[in-house]
Amino acid sequence: MLIALLTDFGPGSVFVGQVKAVLENLCPGVRTLDLCHDIEPGEPLEIVGEGAFLLERSVRYFPQRTVFLCVVDPGVGTARRVLFAEVDGRSFVGPDNGLLAPVIDAGAEVRVTSVEDVRLHLSPRSETFHGRDVFAPLAAHVAMGRRPEGRMLDPADLVRLDAPPAGASRGTVRKIDRWGNLLTDVVPDDGRGRIDRVIVGGRPVAGFVRTFGVARAGEPFITRGGLGTIEVACRDASASAALGIGRGAPVEVIYQPREVRSIS
Amino acid sequence: MLIALLTDFGPGSVFVGQVKAVLENLCPGVRTLDLCHDIEPGEPLEIVGEGAFLLERSVRYFPQRTVFLCVVDPGVGTARRVLFAEVDGRSFVGPDNGLLAPVIDAGAEVRVTSVEDVRLHLSPRSETFHGRDVFAPLAAHVAMGRRPEGRMLDPADLVRLDAPPAGASRGTVRKIDRWGNLLTDVVPDDGRGRIDRVIVGGRPVAGFVRTFGVARAGEPFITRGGLGTIEVACRDASASAALGIGRGAPVEVIYQPREVRSIS
Amino acid sequence: MLIALLTDFGPGSVFVGQVKAVLENLCPGVRTLDLCHDIEPGEPLEIVGEGAFLLERSVRYFPQRTVFLCVVDPGVGTARRVLFAEVDGRSFVGPDNGLLAPVIDAGAEVRVTSVEDVRLHLSPRSETFHGRDVFAPLAAHVAMGRRPEGRMLDPADLVRLDAPPAGASRGTVRKIDRWGNLLTDVVPDDGRGRIDRVIVGGRPVAGFVRTFGVARAGEPFITRGGLGTIEVACRDASASAALGIGRGAPVEVIYQPREVRSIS
Repeated sequence: MLIALLTDFGPGSVFVGQVKAVLENLCPGVRTLDLCHDIEPGEPLEIVGEGAFLLERSVRYFPQRTVFLCVVDPGVGTARRVLFAEVDGRSFVGPDNGLLAPVIDAGAEVRVTSVEDVRLHLSPRSETFHGRDVFAPLAAHVAMGRRPEGRMLDPADLVRLDAPPAGASRGTVRKIDRWGNLLTDVVPDDGRGRIDRVIVGGRPVAGFVRTFGVARAGEPFITRGGLGTIEVACRDASASAALGIGRGAPVEVIYQPREVRSIS
Repeated sequence: MLIALLTDFGPGSVFVGQVKAVLENLCPGVRTLDLCHDIEPGEPLEIVGEGAFLLERSVRYFPQRTVFLCVVDPGVGTARRVLFAEVDGRSFVGPDNGLLAPVIDAGAEVRVTSVEDVRLHLSPRSETFHGRDVFAPLAAHVAMGRRPEGRMLDPADLVRLDAPPAGASRGTVRKIDRWGNLLTDVVPDDGRGRIDRVIVGGRPVAGFVRTFGVARAGEPFITRGGLGTIEVACRDASASAALGIGRGAPVEVIYQPREVRSIS
Repeated sequence: MLIALLTDFGPGSVFVGQVKAVLENLCPGVRTLDLCHDIEPGEPLEIVGEGAFLLERSVRYFPQRTVFLCVVDPGVGTARRVLFAEVDGRSFVGPDNGLLAPVIDAGAEVRVTSVEDVRLHLSPRSETFHGRDVFAPLAAHVAMGRRPEGRMLDPADLVRLDAPPAGASRGTVRKIDRWGNLLTDVVPDDGRGRIDRVIVGGRPVAGFVRTFGVARAGEPFITRGGLGTIEVACRDASASAALGIGRGAPVEVIYQPREVRSIS
């Protein structure tokens, strides 16, 4: 069984290391895959929003039966619920703070429980590191083929962040990547034709470009990024620095008006 | 067999990659676990101190029989000894500079040797990268179930850094984590009651808080961090920046005076 | 089969995570090894140059039959070719931009093809993330023991960056590592005797030192670095900051004149 890890613990950090040690200890020989650990610190809504976005954009590439251990958890140690979700054959463990919501909302067969079984927790349990002491043991439990006991939840009752519905043209800058590209959560709607411009953080950017190598250096442009969503980028430079725009900024995508063909 | 890696080589660096290549080459199919690679560059005492602290705080989460390959080695290529230590069923390979000392000191069954067998080294051997050419082959040797020949050492003769004894209320800021929290090596002594304040780098911080989510934003507070020690943190901000305090600062923990109950 | 990954996607990034998910999905149970992900953003020639340098310096440590998935690809989505190279028993997948050239040039038995089989690509295929949608499926294909169909290329026709021939005393600073050391691609020629000084970015640095611990703090020196090449370093400080020199700077190594022994 494969456990995919998505956290904001930092690449190469001892926090990821201890989580993997717990998984190995409870589930000897377990295979792990680092989906993402580099979510930058910041406001709770922004870090959970980035995690939720990256998770939703990644699940499709994983095999069935993968267990996702997702810990972006600014509310660690507070009353927020601990979720175990089964979505179309994959399993997800994480806090009820919006992190898993986009994946659950996109699922066809969905079953969500709130897990309160403290017998699964490590003892003693840190109140500041549930990733290691609460979520990792739960993921190990699931990876061993067991289904944790829990209280069934109506998916409609989960905590949700603002996320654009399919086909929406407004959304949010969810991530600034290491090159300074602005990754938004807006999926381009090919049925609506060509993109004319985007307004990001109040600033207009025009010019859709198919890929980086064909853009003009130093000039911000729009592209469909590697995560399948609208991205504002700048060849060989940081679009975030050039535009002065960061994570959390609102974005609106404006399509070109359809040509009216006169029938005569 | 599992080899856990603790280095200051940097996450995703080619130095970690080459070490893993050597392990795989000598011990085909070996499983590795990245315990930590993100120790920040700095003064030798500080980087070794951070490594020693993170290692001692992590060993308990690992299975018996794990081999720890520990390379925080500012004295690479000099006369410092190469250690192979067996501590309560786990094995450790690393330089004799204080890195392994806290784990060895905390062990019940301990056996330490100085390994001088150059036949184990890669050839040619770099004098600036013993992690790859000296320590990795040694760890692979151990992971294959062999015990390297060496000169038996009295653990009392190992190089040691300043580390607080159990129950001490004074210690050191060992790590600034990616959120700017100050991680100290002082384990709170629950038998002494509630913590009143800490003096860190000469600055007093009052107010013990159970976890981040219940603290006031922007105000430094004391908590028991994820590594089980006293931590000075700041909700949604960097305590290190707010207080102007970094790695290596001294810390003292002050407990509340016990109430005197009058018997009358 | 082992797949080694070399990219500039960033340690712990979702881009590495998605590539690994694709590998696992196409080749269940595949083992991966992170050779390097921390190449800093910058000019295309510099990032490809760093990748090519790190790859060439690392291949020797890997077992035969390793598959190398190499994606430093500023030309993603443009007409640059997709290479599959077999070099002395190891396999390489990557763009034809100079990244694989030093390894291919150093090989004895070499076979290179341009792979144009779009049936291997993920569908839909992103034009900004071929690492996931083009190169990863190709590497998985190879890891499963299949040889992709392709058009045979003459290695002399590959794109090449400026790289020093064996024995050259001039080269380039290829990487600034996390400690600020300047890693050059010049391999010292022991047959020419002792190194007197180097000229790096127009600045002379004198004094060859065997390893860090024997150098004077704060003073730039020359050493043979962990990758086997000439390195300009500074004990407990950043040579790059001290000298004001970065990636891409030219370097020349000057050896000491041979002593003329008078026969009398």
